Amino acid sequence: MNGAESLVRTFVGGGVNVCFANPGTSEMHFVAALDRVEGMRCILGLFEGVVTGAADGYARLTGDPALTLLHLAPGLGNGLANLHNLSRAQSPIVNVIGDHATYHKQYDAPLNADIEAIARPYSPWLKTSATAADVGRDGAAAIAAARTAPGQIATLILPADTAWSDGGAVAEVPPAPAPPPLAAGAVDVAAEMLRNGKPTAILLGGAALRGEALLAAGRLAAQCGATLMAPYSVARMERGAGRVPVERVPYIVDQAVARLAGFAQMILVGAPAPVAFFAYPNKPSVLTPAGCRIHTLAAPRHDLGAALDALCDAVGARQQAPVLQKPARPELPSGAVTLSGLAAVIAALIPENAIVVDESITSGRGLLPATMGSAPHDWLANTGGSIGFALPVAVGAAVACPDRRVLCLEADGSGMYTLQSLWTMARENLDVTTVIFANRSYNILKNELANVGAGNPGRKALDMLNIGHPDLDWCRLSTGMGVPATRVDRLEELAAALRKNLAARGPTLIELVL
Amino acid sequence: MNGAESLVRTFVGGGVNVCFANPGTSEMHFVAALDRVEGMRCILGLFEGVVTGAADGYARLTGDPALTLLHLAPGLGNGLANLHNLSRAQSPIVNVIGDHATYHKQYDAPLNADIEAIARPYSPWLKTSATAADVGRDGAAAIAAARTAPGQIATLILPADTAWSDGGAVAEVPPAPAPPPLAAGAVDVAAEMLRNGKPTAILLGGAALRGEALLAAGRLAAQCGATLMAPYSVARMERGAGRVPVERVPYIVDQAVARLAGFAQMILVGAPAPVAFFAYPNKPSVLTPAGCRIHTLAAPRHDLGAALDALCDAVGARQQAPVLQKPARPELPSGAVTLSGLAAVIAALIPENAIVVDESITSGRGLLPATMGSAPHDWLANTGGSIGFALPVAVGAAVACPDRRVLCLEADGSGMYTLQSLWTMARENLDVTTVIFANRSYNILKNELANVGAGNPGRKALDMLNIGHPDLDWCRLSTGMGVPATRVDRLEELAAALRKNLAARGPTLIELVL
Repeated sequence: MNGAESLVRTFVGGGVNVCFANPGTSEMHFVAALDRVEGMRCILGLFEGVVTGAADGYARLTGDPALTLLHLAPGLGNGLANLHNLSRAQSPIVNVIGDHATYHKQYDAPLNADIEAIARPYSPWLKTSATAADVGRDGAAAIAAARTAPGQIATLILPADTAWSDGGAVAEVPPAPAPPPLAAGAVDVAAEMLRNGKPTAILLGGAALRGEALLAAGRLAAQCGATLMAPYSVARMERGAGRVPVERVPYIVDQAVARLAGFAQMILVGAPAPVAFFAYPNKPSVLTPAGCRIHTLAAPRHDLGAALDALCDAVGARQQAPVLQKPARPELPSGAVTLSGLAAVIAALIPENAIVVDESITSGRGLLPATMGSAPHDWLANTGGSIGFALPVAVGAAVACPDRRVLCLEADGSGMYTLQSLWTMARENLDVTTVIFANRSYNILKNELANVGAGNPGRKALDMLNIGHPDLDWCRLSTGMGVPATRVDRLEELAAALRKNLAARGPTLIELVL
Repeated sequence: MNGAESLVRTFVGGGVNVCFANPGTSEMHFVAALDRVEGMRCILGLFEGVVTGAADGYARLTGDPALTLLHLAPGLGNGLANLHNLSRAQSPIVNVIGDHATYHKQYDAPLNADIEAIARPYSPWLKTSATAADVGRDGAAAIAAARTAPGQIATLILPADTAWSDGGAVAEVPPAPAPPPLAAGAVDVAAEMLRNGKPTAILLGGAALRGEALLAAGRLAAQCGATLMAPYSVARMERGAGRVPVERVPYIVDQAVARLAGFAQMILVGAPAPVAFFAYPNKPSVLTPAGCRIHTLAAPRHDLGAALDALCDAVGARQQAPVLQKPARPELPSGAVTLSGLAAVIAALIPENAIVVDESITSGRGLLPATMGSAPHDWLANTGGSIGFALPVAVGAAVACPDRRVLCLEADGSGMYTLQSLWTMARENLDVTTVIFANRSYNILKNELANVGAGNPGRKALDMLNIGHPDLDWCRLSTGMGVPATRVDRLEELAAALRKNLAARGPTLIELVL
């Protein structure tokens, strides 16, 4: 058995059986091994940002790693932006990056580069296999590393000769290490804070925004009157009717500061203390008020559900009924497109148990409040701030959950970074309904230009902020990659198209002209 | 004056006046400064691979750096693949990468990352400005570094507060260092080799493939019977009727070994000794025969023209007439598309003084021999092997040379990595004629799978090598970004469309279905 086959068998044996791939020559033996091993689904992306973003989406829904297969340093480079995002989502992933044969490196052939150096900043686990005999064991260690709570990036570099040489040995994947215990006294301090009567926010991150952990947080809110909040950038939160309602910290610094001004205390559960997304002249970096007492109940690496349960026990909330959101769907509006109108259409039509991937940027600022009482759904946001995350994440979410509907809300500027995702949706016939908010500009940057005090933009600056001239035709781009598309510019048309597409099988796209 | 303005003024004063940009919040002050300073042309790309590739094309034609403007680590990541390619093209470039404000870094906001670590492998010159007062001087040093022969990557990281704070000072760009002298005896050894009667190849790279340097090489070939060759991956070579003919080392290892088998000696002039692009089981990495004497007359950092002139003097070739290519245009073929037929069409129609950017991969294997006697033109190839270089490089070449026609020969698989380039061509109304060779597969990988001995591909492997299902519709993709497009599937249609498009102003695209 060659190294490549031992690696594929190790992955499948270890329960990792989806591979998002954009291979090249140095990965051909891995590709060939896919034919000899049952149980690995391999999905092609036409650009590596699709590949890494899809693995992120898959991990956000399953909690378990997918593989990526990437071609040397440039393939890694193309995947780096969505690796940045998934590192902030704390998504588990195993990257397999082909490299030149070990003996060929010395000749510095055109594709040669220092892959490890480029991978290191985003790879808490990083190794280059030395021989075919090592490959299986290295792959197993990579999986265990990826599964280490809360989930992390493991990168395995595979020189071509370690893949093609004989001597491969399948390895058993060791269990991921158990989460460490909470810091001594962490629960007692949090309990004291919840009992002292001061205005308190509980900031929830990661797994605390889902399932039993979220219910436990809802019990604390009901029992102690604490406010449940989430960072602006959430990897996945369960929300909608019947779920524990959680408020996001606003993106805009002034709004965030105003919202947090009243809190004397904040308890962190798997989330970092809130800071500004960017710095702005004469605005604070830290969003909580001066003197706000900030206490970490649990860091992301801890068992967040157990931490919240322990806190419930400490304050006597275990039997408390959690605060739950009442159903509330807006009426379907009609007429010209407004931000509140489009939010109402989407809020009214989100299907039960949908997965919403949101990169609507400025066009979607009204979406979260509008959808509080929509049918229960998962909300996935851009965690790292590198735009171009939504279309690929929608691919991975749909692969992870073939029985659920994915609704991808994408801005036109952001969508262009990874538009190749549409082709993968078409090839795999994924149930993804995409809405492109076409405002023909990097609208957020117009706000940001004002926010940083750079003055009114002139013609040259505006040319960098507008993406019209020529306008992008998303219907042509979409159908050019095999995804049927419709253009709408009125709210009743949006509602009709959305209803139809959400009921159809396979991918569709709506270009909403703003 | 703030730091951003001092930087723009420093660049313009130093003769760097084209900026390919994909900015974000942290670069807004740089963008605002563009409105206040005359003389900087700023060109938007909707994806950073377009931006860095365009800067490569610009540098290949002008020999001088363009700027890129990139947004933090993910923006750099998206540009990395074409930075890889341009590092191998030895193109000068100055990257300006915005970062969080210096005081904001400590909060590890979502977009925070170690930009320096990711930039370092491709940045021989790398600096993060510390204060607004440093920015101008750092920018000037970056330009001088980029201009250091043969041309290199300089990366300046600009924390947002160094851009927006007052205290900026315009700096004068120091002259780039003069190229170092040749190694002692380098010319004498080469002269002895050319006189000893043994079969000798002269391998030309960089500037030795153009202008007076190429003519000097032609004199040596005429005088001494040496064979002029170039690496497979050339940044820019002048060729066609009336030019000194130079043969490329073949990509395929067996062909390269067979071609080089007869040479007892090789003289390197700004090119590395030929090695295989990839390693393959039981094939050599080194392409020259065992015992071939390899001598470096000049490394890329040397003055290659002066080295060739000195060698001409040493062998008495200064007055020799160089070998020159005779004009030879094929007849225009018709009928079904064949590789030799499409090569003949292109060879017949290349306009005088055109810039040909070639990423035709397997579809274009017959192009170089067919175009030997075409109208004189420049040929730009993929130097680093990271596919997705041609469309962006065509953008930069057209910006650099508005009076010349750019013919971009692009494979469908490669084109998908950076298809956003088409939008920039449309916005800037660039005279780029693109031909997409649509074979609906990563055809080269089918060959490579066989070459690496991985056996016959099965269904799952073939799914990773075919990019049909669904077929890409390049006409829709192109018109969706504002570039008029035509589909053809016969040679006479290709000829008619190519003739028409080459005579039109502005960008056009032909999808040639193979």
